[in-house]
Amino acid sequence: MDDKSREQNKNVMNKVILFNKRPVGKPTMDDFKFVEEEMPEAATGQVLLKTLYVSVDPYLRGRMTNAKSYIPPFELNKPLQSTVVAEVVASNNDKFKVGDHITGNLSWKEFQVSDGSGLNKVDGNVASLSAYLGVLGMTGLTAYFGLTEIAHPKAGETVVISGAAGAVGSIAGQIAKILGCKVIGLAGSEEKIELLKSKFGFDEAINYKTTTDMKQAIADAAPNGVDIYFDNVGGEISDAVLANINKFGRVPLCGSISNYNDTEVELGPRVQSTLVKNSVLMQGFIVSNYMDKFKDGIEQLSKWLQEGKLDYSETVVNGFDQIPQAFIDLFDGKNSGKMVVKI
Amino acid sequence: MDDKSREQNKNVMNKVILFNKRPVGKPTMDDFKFVEEEMPEAATGQVLLKTLYVSVDPYLRGRMTNAKSYIPPFELNKPLQSTVVAEVVASNNDKFKVGDHITGNLSWKEFQVSDGSGLNKVDGNVASLSAYLGVLGMTGLTAYFGLTEIAHPKAGETVVISGAAGAVGSIAGQIAKILGCKVIGLAGSEEKIELLKSKFGFDEAINYKTTTDMKQAIADAAPNGVDIYFDNVGGEISDAVLANINKFGRVPLCGSISNYNDTEVELGPRVQSTLVKNSVLMQGFIVSNYMDKFKDGIEQLSKWLQEGKLDYSETVVNGFDQIPQAFIDLFDGKNSGKMVVKI
Repeated sequence: MDDKSREQNKNVMNKVILFNKRPVGKPTMDDFKFVEEEMPEAATGQVLLKTLYVSVDPYLRGRMTNAKSYIPPFELNKPLQSTVVAEVVASNNDKFKVGDHITGNLSWKEFQVSDGSGLNKVDGNVASLSAYLGVLGMTGLTAYFGLTEIAHPKAGETVVISGAAGAVGSIAGQIAKILGCKVIGLAGSEEKIELLKSKFGFDEAINYKTTTDMKQAIADAAPNGVDIYFDNVGGEISDAVLANINKFGRVPLCGSISNYNDTEVELGPRVQSTLVKNSVLMQGFIVSNYMDKFKDGIEQLSKWLQEGKLDYSETVVNGFDQIPQAFIDLFDGKNSGKMVVKI
Repeated sequence: MDDKSREQNKNVMNKVILFNKRPVGKPTMDDFKFVEEEMPEAATGQVLLKTLYVSVDPYLRGRMTNAKSYIPPFELNKPLQSTVVAEVVASNNDKFKVGDHITGNLSWKEFQVSDGSGLNKVDGNVASLSAYLGVLGMTGLTAYFGLTEIAHPKAGETVVISGAAGAVGSIAGQIAKILGCKVIGLAGSEEKIELLKSKFGFDEAINYKTTTDMKQAIADAAPNGVDIYFDNVGGEISDAVLANINKFGRVPLCGSISNYNDTEVELGPRVQSTLVKNSVLMQGFIVSNYMDKFKDGIEQLSKWLQEGKLDYSETVVNGFDQIPQAFIDLFDGKNSGKMVVKI
């Protein structure tokens, strides 16, 4: 760290958000704790990072539970983490210079140091910096690989997407359209329905909160049945879609936000008979399964973005202190597209 | 038909089993109707077939329901059908001669005519004729393709098989052993458990009727978790297995006999969260999806059979009149291995 930075930071404390307690059901503000620590300094080989954007994502709820899953649970009294865009403000690492922008899985801190491992440089000239948390980040890649690696859409097929106005769903729907499919989106407000049709070009959009018979509504919107169901939510909405699934249907499962806060396992009609009757594939996945193909995925998504074939929306909340509330709001569907906190 | 056959058949009536009514819940004898018809005669291009063995299979229950499925429902007051081994007793078709043995999807009749389409010749010298309804027929192929096309077992992996003493399960377990896996079978009687261990070489076998905590029993038998769950039954047994599934687990679904007689859709814990957490694949299938590979499958199964690597068991019931009861008995697990009726 140079003398100037050191001087600037000397008397300033660094804000940190710790994991205070494991939520029971839906997370509340009590589950988080705001503390201050001394400003960190970059040691040899390290960079000092200033957080610019913090991603809040439904999957983080899983890490708050002390259960075996694909990533280890958060530890109590340690900082929470998610994907962050940060600026290098001091560097003792040859690979990074002051002014570089990076993404990485980082702590919820205003400033933090890193040895550079797991950091990827991003270019604010190709897309906005926050886009690297969404369409060109985990959520865009989740949509891309769920479709291309699991669902294999063929032109003319019918694709239903739940959580369609969300960060993953809105991109998944557009990719399916690019690939020549008929796309039906399911979402929970008239605003989102309007957005799906106007901004994202979905063929049909159904408001599950105002529709009494979802099974019939999907049958009406998909007279040829459903070939692909890109499932972001699980729960009763999924029952209604699966009742319309075609032979050889494919169901990439990338989340079940409707169940993340459940304190007991939710019961529903067993799916096995439906899957057998129609030779349906259901495949759970997380984006990191396709890590070796990330570069290709980002390249393809960037190309579509630059060609104007792909649009995205963000809900940007301002202020470090707002990170926990922005996360909690995900479970009430208060976001449209990617939920991001600008620091 | 030659004069001798005509003479023989002149005054003999042909026995037929019709579909009398659609079962509600478990089928009963009332759902079937025995009638007699005049003995059929082979017209030009036709063969007259004498039924030798009739296959009864759980999937037939699905055809008794008037619902959209992978094969059309049985029609009331028409003969029921299943896979049959028959002998050609008269032929006006160049492709078949008297004395040939064939399999095909045929009616529950003592004698019937066919134009030869869909019939396949079988060789009683390679294996017993009834084996073509089991290990070298649909059930053997179901086990083979469920494993090789969906589950892709790797040596050292742990495979759990439900309905393990059944026609499909007993073959699936042996194939998984041949491919180097640890195999755990689930079955419903001490006799079957003994059979799995002694005759079929399963590593472990669990009696789900006498085990109170199946989840724990499976965890104990599979200390490294479950990589593949070959599911023949669905229901609560499947919940217990899925609670032990490993990351990147694979679940071929070839049936859910526990639900076939349900009059309402059974509720169970939703599987989606489990599949997402562990990136698990669940794939419903029927054997005819792999029809273009049947020849290869039968060749491989015959090879293993002749090498003594594959064993099979049959429950053979005697008499045409016993077909319906043999079918009903499937749902009480009265068979061990393939249930076949010898005429």
